[in-house]
Amino acid sequence: MFQINENYQKLPGSYLFSAIAKKVAAYSEKNPDKPLIRLGIGDVTQPIAPAIIEAMHKAVDEMGQAETFHGYAPDLGYAFLRKAIVENDYKARGCEISEDEIFVSDGAKSDSANIQELFSADSKIAVCDPVYPVYVDSNVMAGRTGTYNPDTERWSNVIYMPCTAENHFVPEFPEETPDLIYLCLPNNPTGTTLTKAQLKEWVDYANRVGAVIIYDGAYEAYISQEDVAHSIYECDGAKTCAIELKSFSKNAGFTGVRLGYTVVLLVMSGIREVLGAGTFNGAEVFPAEYAAGMMALPVGGFLTLGVLIALMQWAQTKVKGGK
Amino acid sequence: MFQINENYQKLPGSYLFSAIAKKVAAYSEKNPDKPLIRLGIGDVTQPIAPAIIEAMHKAVDEMGQAETFHGYAPDLGYAFLRKAIVENDYKARGCEISEDEIFVSDGAKSDSANIQELFSADSKIAVCDPVYPVYVDSNVMAGRTGTYNPDTERWSNVIYMPCTAENHFVPEFPEETPDLIYLCLPNNPTGTTLTKAQLKEWVDYANRVGAVIIYDGAYEAYISQEDVAHSIYECDGAKTCAIELKSFSKNAGFTGVRLGYTVVLLVMSGIREVLGAGTFNGAEVFPAEYAAGMMALPVGGFLTLGVLIALMQWAQTKVKGGK
Repeated sequence: MFQINENYQKLPGSYLFSAIAKKVAAYSEKNPDKPLIRLGIGDVTQPIAPAIIEAMHKAVDEMGQAETFHGYAPDLGYAFLRKAIVENDYKARGCEISEDEIFVSDGAKSDSANIQELFSADSKIAVCDPVYPVYVDSNVMAGRTGTYNPDTERWSNVIYMPCTAENHFVPEFPEETPDLIYLCLPNNPTGTTLTKAQLKEWVDYANRVGAVIIYDGAYEAYISQEDVAHSIYECDGAKTCAIELKSFSKNAGFTGVRLGYTVVLLVMSGIREVLGAGTFNGAEVFPAEYAAGMMALPVGGFLTLGVLIALMQWAQTKVKGGK
Repeated sequence: MFQINENYQKLPGSYLFSAIAKKVAAYSEKNPDKPLIRLGIGDVTQPIAPAIIEAMHKAVDEMGQAETFHGYAPDLGYAFLRKAIVENDYKARGCEISEDEIFVSDGAKSDSANIQELFSADSKIAVCDPVYPVYVDSNVMAGRTGTYNPDTERWSNVIYMPCTAENHFVPEFPEETPDLIYLCLPNNPTGTTLTKAQLKEWVDYANRVGAVIIYDGAYEAYISQEDVAHSIYECDGAKTCAIELKSFSKNAGFTGVRLGYTVVLLVMSGIREVLGAGTFNGAEVFPAEYAAGMMALPVGGFLTLGVLIALMQWAQTKVKGGK
């Protein structure tokens, strides 16, 4: 007899956006004449820019002509886009990121929900409080969060890092050691940014305790201060501990178009590609360019998942032993 | 110290498309002058049809104008598309499917990989052999398949239903009772179809043993015989046991555009919506039209995940008790 995933039964307590929708509906019913500004979800307020519209039309025309149409995209996303990301979002800021470390996806939300799958079922997560609920909810579904206490609105097996007026909305290192640390900077919903020096402390902390930082940079376009990093990879040491999630929703007004990307540096990239090969969008074969890059490694021959996992284990040992 | 998902380490043995790519590369190197017809992956061979290209241009223009642009799509997909699916793919074939039972997605592959997440971690799956590898691989990643035996190329905890010349490539009911049965009809890779009467036997079997059929109808466009069902919902009883995955890749030559849908009837729909709310694409709130539909149920008020899960439990009890 089939049974559903029992973890889903634990979800209701935390469903923030359902509660917001309920409150909005109740208020609107009582005050039908009052205009509402919705801050709950960052949706678009302006049409997409002409340059993008033009590029989209060109892309559609490509698909309609025998000389230029194409089917499945490469697993990691089109090379021209990954190249543009590397040049403009990373090299221009002094970050050494290569094209095969960029994983284009159908949006940062999907990635932020799916990324936890790469890690062990008993991983302990740390989140800022308050925080974008997808980080916690996706871990609830995966069974990592323990039990929910409706009085405290906390999960028994999640490490919460309070961000309050008292600490200027800046999270502090948790007492208990996490395996995965979710950092969203600039932060949704508090608007907090960290200076590059402050962020470097988190990188050092993660390397010291052997944690992975899942760095959600979806709001990077709002950074206006010189000393705030646009990417966690601007901090030395991030390449051994950080995965960065990026979106075009904010800088390109792209919400709903579904385009984002994740950056995972070489020592980490194996795990993300496994996900790419199995449960993400795209074709089912390893892209030639990625395999070619990996063939420079001692193992030689075609890239196999075994190699990726072996790389990961090596990376883990290195982090564990050396730092 | 973080650890990766240990199930990923089990994957290499079954990576079919990697093996195919290796063999293709080896052959091509030895025979550079020989043309190759690749049957491994069903990619496009023709540009997208003019009517679709025109619709895509119109959609792009909508996004570029202040009067018509829009952001996040409704969770279940645009109403106009779901309506067209209901009218043309279901009502026209006598299937009673309503719009809120259609879940538009970024392609049938994503759905076929993700759908297993809805079910308990100890679910036992049954697959045809040979079969599209995503069904098994996604369950490997979820830890359901036991250990891999490279000699037999079988997983210890998967029920295989051989499809060979001896049985005319038609699977037989397995001796051991499965919780989830993957059926792909017309079949990839054997091309097998079942008559409606044969398919009805599978529906009856699933209802009898309390299993869910995950019915992959991606190749439905190739059906030419009168007595072959285009949808499992043409069979009485399917609504209590079947989830149907559909694609536009074949009937619209759409491969790579990423558009598909899943049909889950009301007694089952809760589980799929949970996935939609948490880890699939789309906005984070429940769509108003879906909530409205659910409000007709005794529970009243806003749809909650609790209601969905309760519905599921009710459905399970009903199936268990009544059949």
